[in-house]
Amino acid sequence: MSFSQKLQQAARTNDSYLCVGLDPVSEQIPSHLGRGPHAMVAFNKAIIRATQDIACAYKPNLGFYMLYGHDGIRALEETRRAIPDHIPVILDAKVGDIDSTTEAYARGYFDEMRFDAVTAHPYMGKDGLAPLLKRENRCVLVLAKTSNPGSGDLQDLILSVDDSGGTVYEHVAASVVNWQKEFGTCGVVVGATYPDELKRIRAICPDVPLLIPGVGQQEGDLEATVKAAFSTGSGPVAINASRSIIFAGEGLDYIEAVRAAAVDHRDRINRAARDVATA
Amino acid sequence: MSFSQKLQQAARTNDSYLCVGLDPVSEQIPSHLGRGPHAMVAFNKAIIRATQDIACAYKPNLGFYMLYGHDGIRALEETRRAIPDHIPVILDAKVGDIDSTTEAYARGYFDEMRFDAVTAHPYMGKDGLAPLLKRENRCVLVLAKTSNPGSGDLQDLILSVDDSGGTVYEHVAASVVNWQKEFGTCGVVVGATYPDELKRIRAICPDVPLLIPGVGQQEGDLEATVKAAFSTGSGPVAINASRSIIFAGEGLDYIEAVRAAAVDHRDRINRAARDVATA
Repeated sequence: MSFSQKLQQAARTNDSYLCVGLDPVSEQIPSHLGRGPHAMVAFNKAIIRATQDIACAYKPNLGFYMLYGHDGIRALEETRRAIPDHIPVILDAKVGDIDSTTEAYARGYFDEMRFDAVTAHPYMGKDGLAPLLKRENRCVLVLAKTSNPGSGDLQDLILSVDDSGGTVYEHVAASVVNWQKEFGTCGVVVGATYPDELKRIRAICPDVPLLIPGVGQQEGDLEATVKAAFSTGSGPVAINASRSIIFAGEGLDYIEAVRAAAVDHRDRINRAARDVATA
Repeated sequence: MSFSQKLQQAARTNDSYLCVGLDPVSEQIPSHLGRGPHAMVAFNKAIIRATQDIACAYKPNLGFYMLYGHDGIRALEETRRAIPDHIPVILDAKVGDIDSTTEAYARGYFDEMRFDAVTAHPYMGKDGLAPLLKRENRCVLVLAKTSNPGSGDLQDLILSVDDSGGTVYEHVAASVVNWQKEFGTCGVVVGATYPDELKRIRAICPDVPLLIPGVGQQEGDLEATVKAAFSTGSGPVAINASRSIIFAGEGLDYIEAVRAAAVDHRDRINRAARDVATA
């Protein structure tokens, strides 16, 4: 089953476009769970149990695990194993290297750790991503327009007329279309904080998987995001929220607040998506 | 001591601009050392012992360790600890994320694992790199023009006249100058396979640390590279070779071939650098 099919199936099963970001920060974990990598695993497992009928995907970000070195990476591996097989797991590792190194990442992240998808930088070009793109039934989610305030520094630059005359991020989106044609394993990342750019990118690559981080804590406008994401195209959509869900609660009964926040995010996305469909 | 000073001091001590890439591939390690992460550590320690009076820096690439998950990261940590304090260690992790995540990487790679520098993608802009840039006496080596054949896909695109009219990689080099002015902790990465582009980049940012991968196995022209690297500027230079050194030998006496290859690389670089100085 392709990544797109797996994501679509999980979305249908849980009636959800919500991807839950598993980015535990030790200091923000309810104190009764302790601190450090062991607490992160216990925390993640509780989050997964409480949201596995609400989320269409999970997305741990490598940085929050790497903070603890090899113990953190072990926590990442345990977290991945705690997620039911039918829900796709996206490792947010933002890979981008030369081919021999990318082959090592493909073996580690896909073959060994069994992640379904990874995020990737487009800066080094196609041959640098090829070893990941060649893995069947996996997905390489390429950064086009990122959610951070300074994403425009490079991504919004305008190219010369000979090189399309559009922005760098539009050029990347067009590359994603080509890579998807060649490999069938490519998708795109666009931050929820830029709904206009999201709409433009969706028009360029309507049929690839689309990962949208930046709702919640980063304050992307959820309704505008959903409207832009579903404006056209048939590719599956996963809208990620991390901190606004996993840190929704405090104290012993934090997990009820987590579940309520996940349900709230899912339902708001679904309402907005229905508005687009009936508009 | 700043990263530049540390690199310059190591270069003087060992009369060397050679950075040795510690990218062990389990299958290529001499078989008497075994296979897997333990063999990688034993292999790396032997390489370090045999080259610590020849190298000005070491550069392990995260991918070759991540292949083995948490055991691989432990091997990376042990490798870092095996390198003498006075030689800078560059972690080639090609980081690039939003600020909260980059802060986690800064804590992991700089504060905990004690790497002196990391490589980084420019695609997400300044705010995404700021937590790394803010660490005093560390260095963020930003990818400008990479060594792989497809690096031009994005890096060689020509910007519109309003956005400088130059290439994307020249724009990145100009950003590095600004980030160096603001933080004092920024450098640049340019592949040895592109000496003309290297020369252009060195003219834009002559005084920042310059990491040049791609000689050796990737067949960058060493003499042309050195000529371009030392064409102007006062920033320290580290020229990396990985496979052509660490896999130079086979069998029980492989380490003699490794040392000979390191000496040969160092001496060829020095000869070419002297030719530039006396030209």
